Amino acid sequence: MNPAARIYLVGAGPGRADWLTVRAATLLAQADVVISDRLVSREVLTKINPTAEVVLLEEDHGNRERRQLRILHLLEAYARRYRCVVRLKGGDPFVFGRGAEEWAWLVQRGWAVEVVPGVSSAIALPASAGIPPTFRGISSAFAVVTGCLRGGAEPSWERYAQVDTLIILMGVSRRAQIAGALIRAGRPAEQPCCFIENGATPRERIIRATLGEVAGGLCHVNSPAVWVVGDVVSLKDQLRGIATQPTTSILATDHAEHPASPDSLSEPELGLR
Amino acid sequence: MNPAARIYLVGAGPGRADWLTVRAATLLAQADVVISDRLVSREVLTKINPTAEVVLLEEDHGNRERRQLRILHLLEAYARRYRCVVRLKGGDPFVFGRGAEEWAWLVQRGWAVEVVPGVSSAIALPASAGIPPTFRGISSAFAVVTGCLRGGAEPSWERYAQVDTLIILMGVSRRAQIAGALIRAGRPAEQPCCFIENGATPRERIIRATLGEVAGGLCHVNSPAVWVVGDVVSLKDQLRGIATQPTTSILATDHAEHPASPDSLSEPELGLR
Repeated sequence: MNPAARIYLVGAGPGRADWLTVRAATLLAQADVVISDRLVSREVLTKINPTAEVVLLEEDHGNRERRQLRILHLLEAYARRYRCVVRLKGGDPFVFGRGAEEWAWLVQRGWAVEVVPGVSSAIALPASAGIPPTFRGISSAFAVVTGCLRGGAEPSWERYAQVDTLIILMGVSRRAQIAGALIRAGRPAEQPCCFIENGATPRERIIRATLGEVAGGLCHVNSPAVWVVGDVVSLKDQLRGIATQPTTSILATDHAEHPASPDSLSEPELGLR
Repeated sequence: MNPAARIYLVGAGPGRADWLTVRAATLLAQADVVISDRLVSREVLTKINPTAEVVLLEEDHGNRERRQLRILHLLEAYARRYRCVVRLKGGDPFVFGRGAEEWAWLVQRGWAVEVVPGVSSAIALPASAGIPPTFRGISSAFAVVTGCLRGGAEPSWERYAQVDTLIILMGVSRRAQIAGALIRAGRPAEQPCCFIENGATPRERIIRATLGEVAGGLCHVNSPAVWVVGDVVSLKDQLRGIATQPTTSILATDHAEHPASPDSLSEPELGLR
């Protein structure tokens, strides 16, 4: 154990480097090593201290428990060697993503941990696209739900079906099944919903449909996407209806709503150290 | 109308200045005028450009509609005079707080608007206190709900009662009534809950109780506080059980869990321009 080491659990936010917190940006610039999830954007990764070691964790394939244990041992191995160890997670580290599990494990092993919350993709990506999670008279509550439970179990959609706005993460691949379950649980088939695909990146794409259309398999979406279900989706026309209108030009430039070409979806390798 | 003006709807985050986004910090440093909610922390307000005009809006008393219209006209009046007008809101501007209403109104009036999401107090304050909104095997969803609807209407608590983790904002004054409604809607009376009072400030205070104790009026809390209901509250002992333990020293120093003295609750006047 290295008593000088500190491990930072840091939220990278939705992807824009200037949506990092000041604390996160400072830590990335000072880090000796950054262990980052694959989904963290390239724009954020460019803010890492150029002399730091960078470990990009692979996507989830195969045994998730074994992978998680490997990450924890990796964090510990780096904390024995370095002083400033940053564990970087997309969005906020405590909205899914096992941030709190890593925190609990590290505290139990006696490591000094600081947590740095991030702007949550679940809220910021819809909101900046013109779909606020709450709006007086339309939505007085929102729920954030995962579409994918461990062991492939099915979330109990009837428990969430009555919340005004539903924000579903990791639900793209099972969207038809989820939309069907929500309709059976009492949600109107004509209710609008919206996917924000590759949010806050130059490849952002907004896909709108009704819940019934999604249930019928009529809606093509690629992961990762944040999925919002609820009447707040209709506010988009007022807030960011026309991407090129001058009133939203900064956001429109940064998040052009063009359809992603198939090529743009294959991420080129990052030239990382 | 001043075509050079831009109005920025900016989230101030939960209170710590280093939890501001880089974009928010940059805009505060460049602003010609900042129109800020009262609840934004003093620490954040010190980051404002020292030559900027600062308008601190009063708390909500009396007619909310008239107050809201006054804010909109104020924003517009400043946008006619200045180039960089920042509307600063605590937490994230689109989690309650009427951020999207202001956005819609300004867009309709033809103003150039940029939105800057913030770290949401609803997620970050509980999480940094050791209560993550989600945790594998304990909570696969959370809902954020207001305890206070317009016109004094009662939220339909049975619609939210089955979501694993409930995060209730603006619910302190009606906590006994809300806890009772949640128990009647099927939530166990022995379920743990927790208030984070004055979160992310030196006066932070954590108050734990069961839902039944809150319903019975046994729990003393002051506004503002984020209220979390659910089994994730029990994770606090693993994550930040003892505030002074070395593993969490940075956070423990910044957010000491001491009971606030009555004096410390009266905010001294801010020496603002």
